[in-house]
Amino acid sequence: MATVPRTVRFAARTAHMRASTIREMLKVTLQPDVISFGGGLPAPELFPTEAIAQCTREIMEEYGARALQYTVTDGIPEMREWVAQRLTRRLGTPFDAHQIIIVNGSQQGLDLIAKILVDPGDHIVLENPSYLGAIHAFDAYQARYLAVDTDEDGIVPESLEHVLAHAEPPPKFVYLVANFQNPTGRTLSRDRRERIVRICEHFGVPIVEDDPYGELRFEGEDLPALVSYPTSGTVIYSGTGSKILAPGMRVAWLAVRDPEVHEKLVLAKQGADLQSGTLTQYLFARVVARAQDFEQHVKTIRRVYHERRDVMYDALTEDMPETVSFNRPQGGMFLWARARGVDTTDLLQVSAKDGVVFVPGVSFYPHCDVTDGMRLNFSNASPEKIREGIGRLAKAVKEMSS
Amino acid sequence: MATVPRTVRFAARTAHMRASTIREMLKVTLQPDVISFGGGLPAPELFPTEAIAQCTREIMEEYGARALQYTVTDGIPEMREWVAQRLTRRLGTPFDAHQIIIVNGSQQGLDLIAKILVDPGDHIVLENPSYLGAIHAFDAYQARYLAVDTDEDGIVPESLEHVLAHAEPPPKFVYLVANFQNPTGRTLSRDRRERIVRICEHFGVPIVEDDPYGELRFEGEDLPALVSYPTSGTVIYSGTGSKILAPGMRVAWLAVRDPEVHEKLVLAKQGADLQSGTLTQYLFARVVARAQDFEQHVKTIRRVYHERRDVMYDALTEDMPETVSFNRPQGGMFLWARARGVDTTDLLQVSAKDGVVFVPGVSFYPHCDVTDGMRLNFSNASPEKIREGIGRLAKAVKEMSS
Repeated sequence: MATVPRTVRFAARTAHMRASTIREMLKVTLQPDVISFGGGLPAPELFPTEAIAQCTREIMEEYGARALQYTVTDGIPEMREWVAQRLTRRLGTPFDAHQIIIVNGSQQGLDLIAKILVDPGDHIVLENPSYLGAIHAFDAYQARYLAVDTDEDGIVPESLEHVLAHAEPPPKFVYLVANFQNPTGRTLSRDRRERIVRICEHFGVPIVEDDPYGELRFEGEDLPALVSYPTSGTVIYSGTGSKILAPGMRVAWLAVRDPEVHEKLVLAKQGADLQSGTLTQYLFARVVARAQDFEQHVKTIRRVYHERRDVMYDALTEDMPETVSFNRPQGGMFLWARARGVDTTDLLQVSAKDGVVFVPGVSFYPHCDVTDGMRLNFSNASPEKIREGIGRLAKAVKEMSS
Repeated sequence: MATVPRTVRFAARTAHMRASTIREMLKVTLQPDVISFGGGLPAPELFPTEAIAQCTREIMEEYGARALQYTVTDGIPEMREWVAQRLTRRLGTPFDAHQIIIVNGSQQGLDLIAKILVDPGDHIVLENPSYLGAIHAFDAYQARYLAVDTDEDGIVPESLEHVLAHAEPPPKFVYLVANFQNPTGRTLSRDRRERIVRICEHFGVPIVEDDPYGELRFEGEDLPALVSYPTSGTVIYSGTGSKILAPGMRVAWLAVRDPEVHEKLVLAKQGADLQSGTLTQYLFARVVARAQDFEQHVKTIRRVYHERRDVMYDALTEDMPETVSFNRPQGGMFLWARARGVDTTDLLQVSAKDGVVFVPGVSFYPHCDVTDGMRLNFSNASPEKIREGIGRLAKAVKEMSS
C-alpha cells in the first residue's frame, strides 16, 4: 500500500502561542556575570530552606503515605482552609474552604479560567500594558484583546466604560492586577476600585482579579480587593504562594464564590492534570501553620524588597538622563520606566553586552504599540548589584540616545 | 445607567467536560469500611517516606534556594537526563535529555498533546474501551472519537486499518496504552506492535503511546515499545513516576523526537503552568539517583502487585458465578471482568452497600455502549481485603443475577 504523506497537523491555536520573552531571558540570567532586572524572581536567599527540610520530615512521620498518594482535584482541606482564612482576614470579606481551588501556580489558574470561558475570537479586556503570562495563557484559547488605558492610578474607569459599551462581541471578562501591577508596579487607587466593580456589574462582565503581590506592600495602607465589594457580578480572585513562600512549590489558588464557575474550574483542572502536588500542598500548609515564623518571614520579605526598591529608585534618580521617567511603587517586585525616544528592545541588546538585562515593555502591550517601556525587577538582586546594574543600564541608555 | 443582565457565559468546550466517575469514587473510598477496587491507586505502604524526608534535607543543604526557585519549562536537567537514560535502557531505543518534557502527571501530558493537535470536531482514534482520564483530557478540546476493536491481544490491526481508511476528517492521532492497559489490563501482542506502527505510518497518523504501567511487568518478557520501531511517522511517548515512586509528586514525562512537536508542547506548557514543581523534580531525581535502592523499590512493587493479582484472580475463580469472565494480566494494576447480563452501573449500587466498589466499564467506552464491564484494581488493597472484597462482589453479582 502506498503511504499517504500526511505529517503532524497542529491545532489552529498553536498559531497564537508565542514564546515568553521572560522565560527565554531566564537562560541569559543564569550567566553569573549578568545582573538581571528581567525575571519576576523572588529573593532566593529568603526561601525558608531549613523549614522545608524539617516540615518534610514531620509530614513523612505524621502523615506518611497520605502525603504522597493521589488526592482530590480542588486541593487538600488543610491548604484550602488556610487560604480561606487568610483571604478572609486580609481582604476583609469572608471566604470558605469550599470556594478555594488549589492550582499549580497562578499561571494554571489563568489557563483554567480561559479554558472555561473563552471560545476562539472572544474578547478579553486587559490593562494596557498587562501581565505577559496572562496574555500567553489566554493566547492558547485564541482570545482577542481589548486594551483599556491606564495611568499611575491603574486602569482608567472612563476608558473601561467606553470599551465595554462598544465591545462586540461583549467580552468574556476583564483581567487586571490591582496591586503593584506587573509590569508597571502601579496600584489601582481606592476610589477607582468600587467604580471598576460597578462598571463591570453594569455591563454584566466578570472580573478576574489577579493578586500575586498584594501581600508585598511595604508602604502605605492596604486597599480593599475588588472581590470584597458586594456585587451581583462575578469576581474570580487569584492568589499565590510563589511570592510569600517559594515559586518552585507551585502552590497557588483561585477563590470563586459562583458555584457554577467553581464547578467548571474543578472539572477543567481534573482534565488538565487531575490535581496539584499532594506533597507540596502538605508541605506548604505545614510551613504556614508555623504562624509566627511565617508572619515574620513575610515581614522580612517586605523589608528587604522595600530596601531594594529604595536603592533602585535612588540609583535611577542619580544615574538616568532626564529622558527616562520612572515610578516608585509602594510594594511588589517591579518598577516601571519609560525611556523617551528609545526602543527598549534595541536597548536590551546594548545593555546585555554591558551585563544588565530587563524586560522591554513592548510585549506587555496587547497590541505591541508602545516601545519605550522597561520593566525593572528589584526583588532578585542585592543592593550592590542593583546600584551597579542601574549604572550599567544608564550608560546603555546614554549610548543609545547619543 | 440600567444594568445589562449578562451572566457568566461559558466556553462551548465546557459542554463536553464531564466529572470523572473515578475521581468521584475517591470520596466513597475514603470511608474505612469500604473495600475499593475502584481507584488506580498504588500501594501506599510501599511509598519511600524515609527516603523522601532524607532526600529533601539533602537537597535543601546541597542546592538550597535553587530547588525552590522558578526553573525552565521543560524540566530540570537532572530529571530529564534520568528519564532519557532510563527510557534508552528500558525501551532499547536512544533518547536524549532535550527530547524529554517533565509534566505534572501524565494527565497534563495528555492535555498538552490535545492542546497542540486538536481543533473542535477533530477525530482521535481510541481503543475500545480506552483510558477514561485520556478521554476527559481530550473532551476539553471538543474531540470526536473513533473506536477501534480490541481483544485479549490489544488493539486489532484490521480494525485500526479500517477506521483509518474511512475516517473523515483524518484523525489527529491514535491514542493507546500498549502495556497492561487501563481499564482492561491487556497487553498489545508483540507481532501486532510493528503492524500498528506501520499502519499509522501508512496513513500518516501520529501515535500517542501512553505507558504508565510498562515498569510493572511481573510475569513474561518486556515487549518493544511502539516508539522503538524506526518509522517516518511521529510517536509521542508518555511515561510517569506515579506508579514507580509516588503519584502525589506529580512527576511524569513526555518523550518527543519530532522537534516541532516538542517545541509546541513546551510552549503549551509554558502557557498552562510555566513549569512543573522545582522541588519535587529535584526530589524525584534524588530518590531515583540512589540507584540500587530504587531498583529494589521497583522490584518490591512488582512482587507485591504480582501477589495481589494472584490473590484476586484466585478469588474470582473461586467465588464468581460462571456468567462472569475475567483475565489474568501479566503486569500493571488492573484486571478486567465482564458480568454477562448485568449492568455493572447497577451492580455498583448494590455492591457499594455491601462495602465493595469498582469502576463500571461503561465510562471507558467512548460511545458508552458496553455495560457489563468492571475494572478491578488489585494494587491498592491487601490480600486479605482482596479476598474479602471479591467475596462481597460475587455475592452482589449473584443477587443481581437471581
